[in-house]
Amino acid sequence: MIFTNSKSSSFKAEFSELLGRGKMDIESVTVIVGNIISEIKTDKDEALKRHIAKFDKWTPLKDEDLKISTESMKKAYDNIDEKLKSSLHLAYDRIKSYHEKQKPKSWFDTEANGTILGQKVTPVDSAGLYIPGGKAAYPSSLLMNVIPAQVAGVENIVVCTPTPDNEPNELLLAACHLCGVSDVYKVGGASAIAAMAYGTQSIPRVDVITGPGNIFVATAKKMVFGDVNIDMIAGPSEIGILADDSANASHMAIDMLSQAEHDEMASSILITPSQKLADEVKAELENWLLKLPRQEIARRSIEERGAIIVTSDMDEAVELMNQIAPEHLEVATMSPFELLGAIKHAGAIFLGHNTPEAIGDYVAGPNHTLPTGGTAKFYSPLGVENFMKKSSIISFSKSAINEIGEECALIANTEGLTAHELSVRVRLSN
Amino acid sequence: MIFTNSKSSSFKAEFSELLGRGKMDIESVTVIVGNIISEIKTDKDEALKRHIAKFDKWTPLKDEDLKISTESMKKAYDNIDEKLKSSLHLAYDRIKSYHEKQKPKSWFDTEANGTILGQKVTPVDSAGLYIPGGKAAYPSSLLMNVIPAQVAGVENIVVCTPTPDNEPNELLLAACHLCGVSDVYKVGGASAIAAMAYGTQSIPRVDVITGPGNIFVATAKKMVFGDVNIDMIAGPSEIGILADDSANASHMAIDMLSQAEHDEMASSILITPSQKLADEVKAELENWLLKLPRQEIARRSIEERGAIIVTSDMDEAVELMNQIAPEHLEVATMSPFELLGAIKHAGAIFLGHNTPEAIGDYVAGPNHTLPTGGTAKFYSPLGVENFMKKSSIISFSKSAINEIGEECALIANTEGLTAHELSVRVRLSN
Repeated sequence: MIFTNSKSSSFKAEFSELLGRGKMDIESVTVIVGNIISEIKTDKDEALKRHIAKFDKWTPLKDEDLKISTESMKKAYDNIDEKLKSSLHLAYDRIKSYHEKQKPKSWFDTEANGTILGQKVTPVDSAGLYIPGGKAAYPSSLLMNVIPAQVAGVENIVVCTPTPDNEPNELLLAACHLCGVSDVYKVGGASAIAAMAYGTQSIPRVDVITGPGNIFVATAKKMVFGDVNIDMIAGPSEIGILADDSANASHMAIDMLSQAEHDEMASSILITPSQKLADEVKAELENWLLKLPRQEIARRSIEERGAIIVTSDMDEAVELMNQIAPEHLEVATMSPFELLGAIKHAGAIFLGHNTPEAIGDYVAGPNHTLPTGGTAKFYSPLGVENFMKKSSIISFSKSAINEIGEECALIANTEGLTAHELSVRVRLSN
Repeated sequence: MIFTNSKSSSFKAEFSELLGRGKMDIESVTVIVGNIISEIKTDKDEALKRHIAKFDKWTPLKDEDLKISTESMKKAYDNIDEKLKSSLHLAYDRIKSYHEKQKPKSWFDTEANGTILGQKVTPVDSAGLYIPGGKAAYPSSLLMNVIPAQVAGVENIVVCTPTPDNEPNELLLAACHLCGVSDVYKVGGASAIAAMAYGTQSIPRVDVITGPGNIFVATAKKMVFGDVNIDMIAGPSEIGILADDSANASHMAIDMLSQAEHDEMASSILITPSQKLADEVKAELENWLLKLPRQEIARRSIEERGAIIVTSDMDEAVELMNQIAPEHLEVATMSPFELLGAIKHAGAIFLGHNTPEAIGDYVAGPNHTLPTGGTAKFYSPLGVENFMKKSSIISFSKSAINEIGEECALIANTEGLTAHELSVRVRLSN
């Protein structure tokens, strides 16, 4: 773990290591992923079956084997206990309500001369959601991807998830039933991304692909980008915490560990002007680690990628955190809203002592699919807008084009585009 | 040119050719572009100078030679004639006014128990705009990229444009002065994209790269995507026209040619239920072609990539056009707004007989950087949102977390993430 002070002579090097966190070596798998994509483009379902046999260790005999039956989803849903069921319904309802509020609207504006300008917002026709499978199959990931697509109004929603040994995760199946999705395919990795981007006999081609995944999935998403749209290229999870003396050290430590337990590559970074808090959190990390079933993963993450930085003041802490641009940012200070204006870059901002990051993973409402590795400087959380697109609207009356047509024709002429010029001039009254 | 009827036996094959229009063979230049990017990453300014000597045929002697002086921009602006100057100012003002209307706002919503959820919208710190140079250097492209970045509130705006033979396009310089941009570099192609994505001694690293370009530029944008954000991967320009008997055949023909004159690869596609209009437009195309300075380019575009399709009715025409998903869509019918609801996919929609596409290229206000090649099914026009990103806002009170914390902890527990569960539980009152 990096345990440092911003005044330390080694700080610059240490901080630069943090800025470089989560960089994925996409180039290292480009050839492998390129081959997988080519195979899917050429051999379609046959290639899918080969890849499933190789990676998931089971053999689909016929095309129908690739799809999960709606009956099995219903059965999985019926089998979960009532408390979990109502918790998942609470999550569904809150996530839906939040995403409905962010749904963009078509708009237009008029000018008295008969000009109408605006934007029409429409859903994409189809979306493909990738949900990791096996042990790390999270029903919450399904909710977070399906709901924004549904709120957007996407007609065709396809889900792909790997099922190692042909054993789907029952909770994921239950979540599929709860969300009302029915086109769910037992396909994973780069093959799934390629299948949704280009279509196979079984899996329809989609317009937008979203969802988390490992480096092969991330690389495949990058490679098909342009032929379809994608949400973002995401890496390991991470948390940044800005805290002052009012923070509870034990809470800060377990919050850091809630990221660390995801993945050995996860980063947990606390920045505080309080040396006292820094020391206490360091000690609390060890206390908590001993209690965690996923101690081994969390310990390695904290040791190799954790950091506690003590700064001169909160302004410096915020400034450093803006450079980090963390996926999740907790603001555990006495007056967290006072810092909101100064915070420029973060996927999601959790304000105050009663807002642990985990509340946003499940039930708060906002999406938990967020930009990682500093890409919060330019990417947004997954949302309804990822499943919609805009068309500009332009309508001119006779008098409107007469009013500015001459200027338009002149610029076109200056750019040497005569047909542009003429297409305006023929509509002008003399 | 494809001149066909949707009932024709050859129609399916012809239409499928149109759907495949504008596909760029990005794979064919991936190795070249990959090498260019590697060189820029390693040798920075020195690589830029080598590439300029090779592609633009002049030799920058020192680093300062890479930058265009603000004095030369001011001079170019002072030298343009007053009528053009006021036309460009009209364009600037209208484009700015439109983009201000589309600027997204931060929002939040509260619950009585003390929950606050919302989204904070902030500009990216820096943007890099690529503007093609040489003969096809269009001042309008500069306006259309700079203004949304300025309206978004981007602090650092960098422009790269190639200057073959070290001769900048004077109109482009004038437009730079008009827009108030000062960081303009004489660098083009994939080198410029790599320089803005990774930074050199002279050119700062940016967060978002936008702007049009050839296949090398498009491929470079795809390859740096993930390390920066980009607007879209755009190909040759195109127009789709839905028209009925009320349309003026001569106007339709010159509108088609206004796309065709851009580029031999441009596509112009008229779909109409009127055989009469179809026949007349075909004849008018020839009449107009003879009058165009860019006749050779326009003729080749129309011959190789133009299409006139006659359908059974307007519903079928709209349905086909939705499959085409054109960059520009003119609706030249008696009651164009009646079709607006049925139109699903188009970059920009031009409604009515007085709205030629060219009016949107320059002065109407909406952006002329639009998705091509069918990507309007999932991409939006360039806009203020390309230069902004969102952070989710989540704030819980003690009573808010007490209300739904148990459900949250249960889902976390079910997913096997104990630290997530504990980070919530420690905050619950017993």
